[in-house]
This record gives sequence, structure tokens and C-alpha cells, in this order.
Amino acid sequence: MTAPSSKPPTVALDAMGGDEGPAMVVAGADVARLNHPGVRFLLFGDSAKLEPLLAERPGLAAVSTVEHTDRIVTNDTKPSIALRSGRQSSMRLAIDAVAGGRADCVVSAGNTGALMAMAKFALKTLPGIDRPAIASFFPTERGETVMLDLGANIECDADNLVQFALMGAVFCKAVLGYPSPTIGLLNVGAEELKGHDELREAAARLRSMDLPGRFHGFVEGDDITRGTVDVVVTDGFTGNVALKTAEGTAKLVSHWLRQTFKSSVFASLGYLLAANAFRKLKARTDPRRYNGAMFVGLRGICVKSHGGTDAKGFGHAIDVAVDLAIEGFSETVRMELARYGTPPQADGGTPPAADPPPSEPRADTA
Amino acid sequence: MTAPSSKPPTVALDAMGGDEGPAMVVAGADVARLNHPGVRFLLFGDSAKLEPLLAERPGLAAVSTVEHTDRIVTNDTKPSIALRSGRQSSMRLAIDAVAGGRADCVVSAGNTGALMAMAKFALKTLPGIDRPAIASFFPTERGETVMLDLGANIECDADNLVQFALMGAVFCKAVLGYPSPTIGLLNVGAEELKGHDELREAAARLRSMDLPGRFHGFVEGDDITRGTVDVVVTDGFTGNVALKTAEGTAKLVSHWLRQTFKSSVFASLGYLLAANAFRKLKARTDPRRYNGAMFVGLRGICVKSHGGTDAKGFGHAIDVAVDLAIEGFSETVRMELARYGTPPQADGGTPPAADPPPSEPRADTA
Repeated sequence: MTAPSSKPPTVALDAMGGDEGPAMVVAGADVARLNHPGVRFLLFGDSAKLEPLLAERPGLAAVSTVEHTDRIVTNDTKPSIALRSGRQSSMRLAIDAVAGGRADCVVSAGNTGALMAMAKFALKTLPGIDRPAIASFFPTERGETVMLDLGANIECDADNLVQFALMGAVFCKAVLGYPSPTIGLLNVGAEELKGHDELREAAARLRSMDLPGRFHGFVEGDDITRGTVDVVVTDGFTGNVALKTAEGTAKLVSHWLRQTFKSSVFASLGYLLAANAFRKLKARTDPRRYNGAMFVGLRGICVKSHGGTDAKGFGHAIDVAVDLAIEGFSETVRMELARYGTPPQADGGTPPAADPPPSEPRADTA
Repeated sequence: MTAPSSKPPTVALDAMGGDEGPAMVVAGADVARLNHPGVRFLLFGDSAKLEPLLAERPGLAAVSTVEHTDRIVTNDTKPSIALRSGRQSSMRLAIDAVAGGRADCVVSAGNTGALMAMAKFALKTLPGIDRPAIASFFPTERGETVMLDLGANIECDADNLVQFALMGAVFCKAVLGYPSPTIGLLNVGAEELKGHDELREAAARLRSMDLPGRFHGFVEGDDITRGTVDVVVTDGFTGNVALKTAEGTAKLVSHWLRQTFKSSVFASLGYLLAANAFRKLKARTDPRRYNGAMFVGLRGICVKSHGGTDAKGFGHAIDVAVDLAIEGFSETVRMELARYGTPPQADGGTPPAADPPPSEPRADTA
């Protein structure tokens, strides 16, 4: 939407993150490379592991540079500890590459809380934003809905929720191209008297604000997949539980379907006849297609991949990051935030001394 | 488990609750009547509406008594207002019938927050329980899981969560017959360092307590439908969002399935072949089979029906209430709570003067 970068982007990869580690990351980069001619990769991690993997993939090796480190952030590391003692970790060095201008975006499948704490510290938040949030897409009956926060901020006040609403709407405009997205606050009832105080305060403020979209009011859990609004705003605890409950429910229904098709000879034959249609449904609803959650509210592009994904899913997370980099997403968000919401601070955001956040992000997703 | 009542129970019905009101309630009672020979109904509501409906159903009329009131609690009434000014409402009179010993259980499809506030006030909480919770069953890959709180208590402290864990385990033992249910606390990560302070405090206490089951630790949203534990404990806000997100996701997948079967001639033929198996799946996963949420922690049996259900669903909510009454559920819970957890108070619970609760329940579930 704003001056897209003409140069193909450079992607910094935390090559040690994720359940499968370097093998998955390298294979994922190889998948993504084919979608983005000219893209380059900086891989941060153990060169003894990475070099042999790249040697098997000469096409990828030709556009990749390995920067060695033997330090990693494990999944059980507290964000505050990662921030203090993880300065030489693969995750931090990958983020620093974006902060230093050597890369245009960073992708990691590692510890979400640590990634958020480090990204916030090294990349800084955008003017007017106190805390970044994790945003991603939910498939709905009507198309796709942006939901945030999915796990970065366990406790949120009205200010945070209002900022999430702003960022979510801008994200929705920029990535889905909706001219005026509708925004809903997730609650336990649509009536104004329901829910936590901070929800009601946020709703009152959103009703009176000029927004990059339209405030719909409160929505409930079943409105997410119904597609009642284009942007669903919630705190990171509720968002994370909702995301994982939806994933679990979809798995349960798939489990029942498999049982149903196996339950009789007729049903099995029926499956064979419908198999092609089911293959299409499966491709459309493949969770890997929804992999790649964006950290919104930062001055750089940071995408979190599901830790348990495979090469195809990690490749999709890279696609998300590359698309955002090409679109000049951070600049778009900065400009839209300057137009709406709280005026940007003169110094351009929270000074580094105020980082890390007073209440460290304890959150994690996937 | 404890001295089951030999006499068929009397069921008090809030005949004015629910989206469809008296017609749905009367038709639902007629469905439930066939499952429970000897059961009797006290119907509270507008006799001008109820008598003609009963006249059409002589079998039901023979076991029913109408007690007239023209006062109702609407869905947008605040619980505190309902408590103060709804003493002659159909909902309150039905609860009072249980409190006064004229009925063995009450069922309402009306305003959840008002029902909880009135039930808590009129029926009183059990010894050792500060706040009742809403419990219901979730279908899982392994069978069924009890989940609570589904919307009664928007904000919960560690005490509440520990009590919910106790009540949930007792409910699971009594209703599902599991000898030693496993209990999980819903969180955003399985590691001990994650989540709100009250969650971590509740977990620490549950680890060291003697329980009517076994404490598993933290579980995540996708563990609910996976059946990782038999009892999932959470606050009413998160539980309500999770419940509705799961309902919405199941609807979305059904929507996709219909599209898939319509997408080609082969797929349509496949559906015809598998139709019988799908009918069985549909019957098994019918949301009406899961209608009827129990208010646990009260000295009387109170079941909340989904407001938007039909006669079959409301009939199932009555089934739940009648089964609990026959099993002597309230007495079982009281005895189990006396064995485990906090010792019962000498006076047998919160004195009436302390009711209504200091922070009124703002919650609602559909």
C-alpha cells in the first residue's frame, strides 16, 4: 500500500527454532525460495549442522549465508532470562539482523515469549503502541478474520485492547485489502453490561474513536468462525485458548469423519467417490496454510512459525514475512497509526531504558 | 452413589425462559416425561399461555401443575436487578420451589447470570464453596470431559479454581462414574512458569492436596477435545469463550463438509452412499445431546438449558436434572467435599446476609 520495496527482501532465519530444528528450517527456506525469486536468506545457528543441510540443496545454498552460533533459546527459557543471557542466541542474532538493517524480516519457530521479548527490545515498538501483539488469520464461513492477541500479552488493559484494535484493522487493510474492516471485542455476551471492566472501557473508547475501520461492538466465541467481524480483538490468554480450542475441535471433527467413513462398506465407497472433493477441502483447510503469526506493533517484521510445523508450514511462514516486507508493512502501520488513535510520541516510541516490559511476557503460543 | 431417592422427582420449570418461551418448555417437558415414568412438573409462568399448550398434551397435563405469574426475567436484566426485583418472576418461583422442598430440581433456559444469582441466593452454596460454577460435558476423542466454569464467574482467584477442581472431579465421579478423574487447569502453556498468578497458585495447591481424583497439571485449549484430562478447570470468561469457539468451529467444519459434498456429482453420490453413517454421526454429535449445564456447588439441583434450543434439547436438560436428582447428587457432592478440600464451615456455609455476592455475576452463557 505504501512504497513497496523494489529489491527482493533478505530474510533472517532462526535456524535452530522449532521441534525439528535446522532440518525443518532449511527445507522450509527451500520451499519458500521457489515462490520468491531473488530472495536471500541469513541463517543463524550451528554451522556444523547447517552447512551439510545446505550442501544437499545447492539452489538454496546459492542464496543463503550461514552465520554461526552455538547458543540457542530453549522452549522452557523464561523470556526475561532469554533477554538477559541470550544475546548470542540464533534467535536474537536473527532479530538483530533486522534491527541493524541487514535483513528485511525475521522468522522463528522457537519460544514465543522469548521471541516477543527480544523482538520488542531490539526492534522497538511503533509510536503510540505500548505492547506488540501476535496476529494471525482464522478461516471463517465468509473468508478470513484477523485475530489478535494470540498469546503475547497475558494481561491486557483497555489501552492495550484499543491499540490491538487499531493494529488489527491496519493489518487487515494491508494484508487482506479490506477498505474498512469491522472490529469486534471478544466477550462472553453481546450486551454492554457484560465482561471485564477493561473490555467495557475499551468498547466505550472504540465507539467514540476515528478508526481505520468500523467498531462493531462485542462478539462471542462462535462469532470468530462465523466471520461476524473482520478483526477479533482479545487479550493474549483468551486468544491463545480460543485458537487452540478451535484447532482441537477441528481435529476432533476430522477424527469423527474418519471413523464415519470407515464405519461401513457403503460409507467407505462413498468416501472413494468424494475423495477428490475431500482432497480439495483438505488443501484449503490445511493448518500449514495458516502458519505464520505476525508480531504487530514493532518497527520491523517478525513472524512466528508454529514450533511443530514441517517444511511446507515453515515455508508459508516465510511467505508471510516476505509478503509483508515487500508491501512495506511496518511503514504502512506506522502511517496509519499516525492518522488514527493516539498521536505518535515525539521521540518515536518507548525509550530503550523502559525495556524489557515491566511485567515480562510469560506467554507462549504453539 | 449416595442414597438415591426412591420417589420419582418433581421438576420445577421456568416456563417463560428461552428464545421460544412456553411452547418450547412445554414440548420439552413432554419429551422428557416419556423417559422418566412417575416424574411430575411444576410449571411457573403465564397460565393464559401455558394452559392451552397443556390442553394439547393431556399426558403431560396429567403430571403437571401450573403456578401462575406474569413476571419474567428478560435476557438483558442485570443479575443484581433480577435478584432485587424479580422475586415473583417465573425463574425465581421455580428456584424457590426447590429451596422450599416442593421440587427436587429446577430447569431454566433463561438469563444465565440472573439464574445463577437467584439460585445462589435461594439455594445457598455448599459448605466450603464460595462460588458455584457452571459445568457441562465436552465430547472428546476419548469420550467425554467435564469442563467448568463455563460462564458464572468472570473473574476467579486461586480459591475459586481449587474449589472448581474439587467440584468438577466429584461431578465427574458421580455422573460419568470415573473412579479417579484426572484434573487439568486450562492455561496457555504446559510449563509451570506460564499463565496468570492465580493459575500458578491454584496449581501449586492442587499438587499438594488430597483430591477426589488426580491433578494432571496445566492443559491447553487443544487438550479439551483431545481428552487429555477428565476435568478441565478454568474461569468463567475463558470457559465461555472456549465453549463457544468450539461450537463455532464445529459449525464451520460442517459448513465446509456440506460444500464439499455439493462440489461435484461424484461427491454428491459419495454422500448418498455414506448418508447412513453420517446420520449416525449427526445423532452422536447433536448439540442437543450436550444441552443442560449444571450449576455445581449449590445445595439444590439447578440446570441451565441453552436459550436457543428446541423441545428435544430442553428435554435433554430436564433429563440431566432428573438424573442428578435421582442420584442424590447434591448430597454426594456435599459428602465428597467434606472428605476432601477445605473443611465444611460450622454453620454450613455462607450466611444468607453475605448474599448476594459482593461482585455480582455479570456472566452469561447462551
